[in-house]
Amino acid sequence: MAEIIPILKDNFDFEKQVKTLTNLCKHDLESVNTLILEKLDSSVPLIHEIASYLIISGGKRLRPLMTSACFHLNYNNQKKMMNHIGLAAALEFIHAATLLHDDVVDESMKRRGKLTANEVWGNKTSVLVGDFLFSRSFQLMTKYGNLETLKILSDTSVVISEGEVLELSNDKNLKINENIYFEVINGKTASLFSAACQVGGISSNANKSQIEALKAFGTNFGMTFQLVDDAIDYCSNKKILGKNIGDDFKEGKITLPIILAYGRSNQKEKNFWQRVISELKQKDDDFEEAITIINKYNCIEDTILRAKHFSNVAIDSLDAFKNNKYKDCLINLTETSIKRIA
Amino acid sequence: MAEIIPILKDNFDFEKQVKTLTNLCKHDLESVNTLILEKLDSSVPLIHEIASYLIISGGKRLRPLMTSACFHLNYNNQKKMMNHIGLAAALEFIHAATLLHDDVVDESMKRRGKLTANEVWGNKTSVLVGDFLFSRSFQLMTKYGNLETLKILSDTSVVISEGEVLELSNDKNLKINENIYFEVINGKTASLFSAACQVGGISSNANKSQIEALKAFGTNFGMTFQLVDDAIDYCSNKKILGKNIGDDFKEGKITLPIILAYGRSNQKEKNFWQRVISELKQKDDDFEEAITIINKYNCIEDTILRAKHFSNVAIDSLDAFKNNKYKDCLINLTETSIKRIA
Repeated sequence: MAEIIPILKDNFDFEKQVKTLTNLCKHDLESVNTLILEKLDSSVPLIHEIASYLIISGGKRLRPLMTSACFHLNYNNQKKMMNHIGLAAALEFIHAATLLHDDVVDESMKRRGKLTANEVWGNKTSVLVGDFLFSRSFQLMTKYGNLETLKILSDTSVVISEGEVLELSNDKNLKINENIYFEVINGKTASLFSAACQVGGISSNANKSQIEALKAFGTNFGMTFQLVDDAIDYCSNKKILGKNIGDDFKEGKITLPIILAYGRSNQKEKNFWQRVISELKQKDDDFEEAITIINKYNCIEDTILRAKHFSNVAIDSLDAFKNNKYKDCLINLTETSIKRIA
Repeated sequence: MAEIIPILKDNFDFEKQVKTLTNLCKHDLESVNTLILEKLDSSVPLIHEIASYLIISGGKRLRPLMTSACFHLNYNNQKKMMNHIGLAAALEFIHAATLLHDDVVDESMKRRGKLTANEVWGNKTSVLVGDFLFSRSFQLMTKYGNLETLKILSDTSVVISEGEVLELSNDKNLKINENIYFEVINGKTASLFSAACQVGGISSNANKSQIEALKAFGTNFGMTFQLVDDAIDYCSNKKILGKNIGDDFKEGKITLPIILAYGRSNQKEKNFWQRVISELKQKDDDFEEAITIINKYNCIEDTILRAKHFSNVAIDSLDAFKNNKYKDCLINLTETSIKRIA
């Protein structure tokens, strides 16, 4: 598959911001990791093995990071009502469970540069260990949360699975409209970020309008994150995200660049998309041809434009909080999440 | 596959008892059904379609029935603390979710005489709709339960998924010992019955020792139910359970009759089990041969003996409650659950 010349200026700003925020929340994240390790334990050795492979091995812990940051955004050493560490661990378990099931559904072979669990242990085991992680997350939120956080997290789980089924129902459907696609990625990505931010705020006794603000921040940050991810697949270099360029294309995955490109294509180009995406009949130089059409119609720029809209809403929603280093960092993180590509 | 002459005296006693109890709990079960229908609704049509196929179509609603019966076992028109209807619906959603994932893992083609969802819509959809049902159940228990019932139900979900993985880890392992097998069926079957009984009791303000009694009753009823189910596969007729005789055998599933038979077999017979179960290389008359060996070593009788033990414990645990028609019915149900076969 052809290597595309990256159009990026500064790939690593986002990574830098993640590191800065991770440092600010270091103590919390260490506690989250300790709790995760403890809760990966099971009397069934296979569960421990796979769950560890998935959870210990990788990932930036972005969702626990959001919970911790949103907790500290507002926390004033007042009496703590809830354990945001436990809730952050629950979020990471939900995230891991969805990754396991996603990889089964997408028939993915690699994640974060490693073989996926379904490749190593098979689909059956991945389905059941995903169920375990999901159950464990509910155990954690029952133990560490209250009825308000339980409602948010169980509602979020419903939205996630609805988003996944909605995506599957539109598999290879090039005519899916942008709005339905936004619903899909709200379910798949944004809703869990939103929950992560909300439970952080609730744990620090944020008021109602602040919790609404965090809900908006998380949702819009998540939308931004996913859209930039979509765009990267068609123009980035291999180093970002542990994700190979062209992965979405190879799987025939419908993402915003494709949706925009298909809508703007002439008949000949529409036939091309039909063949390579809907029928998944791909030849060696099809990826280059795809990029050519995508660029002809400015589909990456327009994907980023959508992402920029969501990032603007995310940043403005933080007005509900006083300035402090956590707020600065969340703003920088959101801004640089766009700069992963543009 | 050969038809085996049934050794049963009165197949339908159990069904009769289910009907009697269902009549006693009719009002509750109608409310549960209404709530289930309402909560099957989703903005994603595919979810509604599959979930309805699975949940509306069939099953005796045994778990909601247990919740309702255990609620009334103790209820004295005092102020209700919780909505046992909502919790009963949550239990049915958990049950449906595990059936969907089970059928994917077991590659089953039929359930209750109908094609399984994975046969109709594919494995991917079944995995994701199972996740939806599971999430929906947590939403319901968050709405209708309290921290005590949430703890029971989330703990139960962990036990269920651990049981499933434990079973998969021992797939085709003829040397699995009886104790590990009991752990598997406790997870797969008994734990959800136990939870169903407990939340019924908690909803009617049962005291601690009564809740312990219901926990024991549900667990031991579930163990009985599963062991009788195991035995039926090797000697019943086709009408019971909507399950075809020899299903477990055909799938090479390890159940107690096989575990007992393998342990008691001579080398030639052990080789037979190895071929037909572990290697799943089955010829036309292998099922008859399996029955012959199983009967030679009294493995059905001994499976029923184990079941009988659990049913005795179940019945005695109801001593914590005063006599009433619900108690009578639960005792009859437990006794006749054995008579499905012996």
